[in-house]
Amino acid sequence: MSLDPSAKALVPFVSVDHMMRLVHHIGIEKMLADLAATIEDNFRRWQSFDKTPRIPAHSDVGVIELMPTTDGELYGFKYVNGHPSNTFAGLQTVTAFGLLADMRTGYPVLFSEMTILTALRTAATSAMVARHLAPKGAKTMAVIGNGAQCEFQCLAFRTLVGIDEVRLYDLDPAATEKAARNLAGTGLRVVSCKSPEEAIEGAQILTTCTADKKYATILSDNMVGPGVHINAVGGDSPGKTELAEGILHRASIFVEFPPQTRIEGEIQQLAEDHPVTELWQVINGEAEGRTSQDQITLFDSVGFAVEDFAALRYLHGAIQGTEHFVLLDMLADPDDPRDLFGMVQRAA
Amino acid sequence: MSLDPSAKALVPFVSVDHMMRLVHHIGIEKMLADLAATIEDNFRRWQSFDKTPRIPAHSDVGVIELMPTTDGELYGFKYVNGHPSNTFAGLQTVTAFGLLADMRTGYPVLFSEMTILTALRTAATSAMVARHLAPKGAKTMAVIGNGAQCEFQCLAFRTLVGIDEVRLYDLDPAATEKAARNLAGTGLRVVSCKSPEEAIEGAQILTTCTADKKYATILSDNMVGPGVHINAVGGDSPGKTELAEGILHRASIFVEFPPQTRIEGEIQQLAEDHPVTELWQVINGEAEGRTSQDQITLFDSVGFAVEDFAALRYLHGAIQGTEHFVLLDMLADPDDPRDLFGMVQRAA
Repeated sequence: MSLDPSAKALVPFVSVDHMMRLVHHIGIEKMLADLAATIEDNFRRWQSFDKTPRIPAHSDVGVIELMPTTDGELYGFKYVNGHPSNTFAGLQTVTAFGLLADMRTGYPVLFSEMTILTALRTAATSAMVARHLAPKGAKTMAVIGNGAQCEFQCLAFRTLVGIDEVRLYDLDPAATEKAARNLAGTGLRVVSCKSPEEAIEGAQILTTCTADKKYATILSDNMVGPGVHINAVGGDSPGKTELAEGILHRASIFVEFPPQTRIEGEIQQLAEDHPVTELWQVINGEAEGRTSQDQITLFDSVGFAVEDFAALRYLHGAIQGTEHFVLLDMLADPDDPRDLFGMVQRAA
Repeated sequence: MSLDPSAKALVPFVSVDHMMRLVHHIGIEKMLADLAATIEDNFRRWQSFDKTPRIPAHSDVGVIELMPTTDGELYGFKYVNGHPSNTFAGLQTVTAFGLLADMRTGYPVLFSEMTILTALRTAATSAMVARHLAPKGAKTMAVIGNGAQCEFQCLAFRTLVGIDEVRLYDLDPAATEKAARNLAGTGLRVVSCKSPEEAIEGAQILTTCTADKKYATILSDNMVGPGVHINAVGGDSPGKTELAEGILHRASIFVEFPPQTRIEGEIQQLAEDHPVTELWQVINGEAEGRTSQDQITLFDSVGFAVEDFAALRYLHGAIQGTEHFVLLDMLADPDDPRDLFGMVQRAA
């Protein structure tokens, strides 16, 4: 009897280092486009997924959440934390990892870091949604909040929407400098701005991705004119919003999964029956997206398990034939499945 | 700027191989006793835990479940599947892994295989509970169902309860032979039996741990006489029970977490308001355990998140100073937390 674990007992693991190498192997813009395509494909078959709001564990300083979903064939979940005060301790506000498993056997088939992958899928989702909602020919995007998500958004909108100018603003000029430095050489025209008002000048798309866990007003009502698309990324948990309520009353609001967005999104500010459109229906052609030039469209993004599932499914394919993973001895797999004790005993 | 991950970005990982080495390093009976002590300690402070029924994803052939809990300082969850048909494919019916994280930062502090650890904690929990409920001086235990859990139960009851004879029965004689072979030399007197009736002869403790996902009658009403303690391990999911209903009406029933046990345990056969006693109250001295010699006590075990939390907490301490883990590069941790993109960019 062999003590070596069998192939099924070994789970491919994509570390942070592997993920970074994979991004460069594929190319970040191609990876954003591939991710957007997979996410769009999974939105199109929305009704094949088991959907449930994420399962949170809250503390005074943050939250740890599990986000599971399944399409009946594969099962995926993400572990993600949100701890705004981490930044002051030199830690990431958001870290994540996730897993994909085979529903027929319950055996995991992929385990991966998802801090970087979440940043990529969030930006890919935003840009994919903007292709359906933003005004045609949009070339300029304002990005208010220049933290960890900012550059990913900029590149995704360049690749998928055709944005050629990004106008950056952050309360902390050092964050804007960091983003501008990182975006130099990407082909985007980068304008660092001294105020949110300056940032939104001439922008057809307004992206908000700030990190503070509070009711904030990143965009006030008078800043939002007719015809823009708002990509509201940062308002994503109870007590954390970015838009003045007045904007919400003037906008057509599009969401991922209403039961979750009503708790976590900008629309937590509104009545529970305020009308929203589900994005999967727009993507499917079952509901209308943008219907007029003057319409304000709002993607009230909170991030949903189906996007992570799609990202893991894409990753599972993308690592095949590469060296960008290792095999983890994660599953006990005795020769005789009933002889777990004997396996342990023989390891002596 | 360093590309090496910082210490906090590296998560200790205990593989299956590490776990087996750790079991031998500590000694399996000591480890069972240590686990029982930690689990008992966590039951004693039951009210400090966030408790929720596990979150399942069902298919025709099995289930994948997430079991999270937190005591406010640490957060733990287990991923576990249950696929009875896996055995025929040479796979484990149940595999598991789990994670422990710091609630203050959301950063994981331990990632581990939990197939072996679950087998250990399940047996440790059973034996710890039997110390509170089984008749004093019990020396003989019947074990019906001689699959993966059987030998762990036998050793835990030897170490923690003082059992010196185990009487084994399984529908498949090969399973009994396997268990008897593994238990040779442990100091237990092992009697292989040809029927459940033979197995229960003279036994003060009846352990059932069969694997079939159906309503089964492993113990019929007339097999259970006064004064015994029943340790019902196998009836642990909807549609999966082991005891004749008549037994339940004659027994004092003790459970881990009633909302979960009413769905998953033997008591799914009973009315929703059938009286049960919560084990944490017995352990705390707030409720009575065994009150008479003739009483039939039943531990309707289904396994609860607090037990896995306790096992992970124990493991986190047990690996310190050993070589029985590796560090996984699981968390992206740029020097500047807001510069995730720059970190990816610089890896080129």
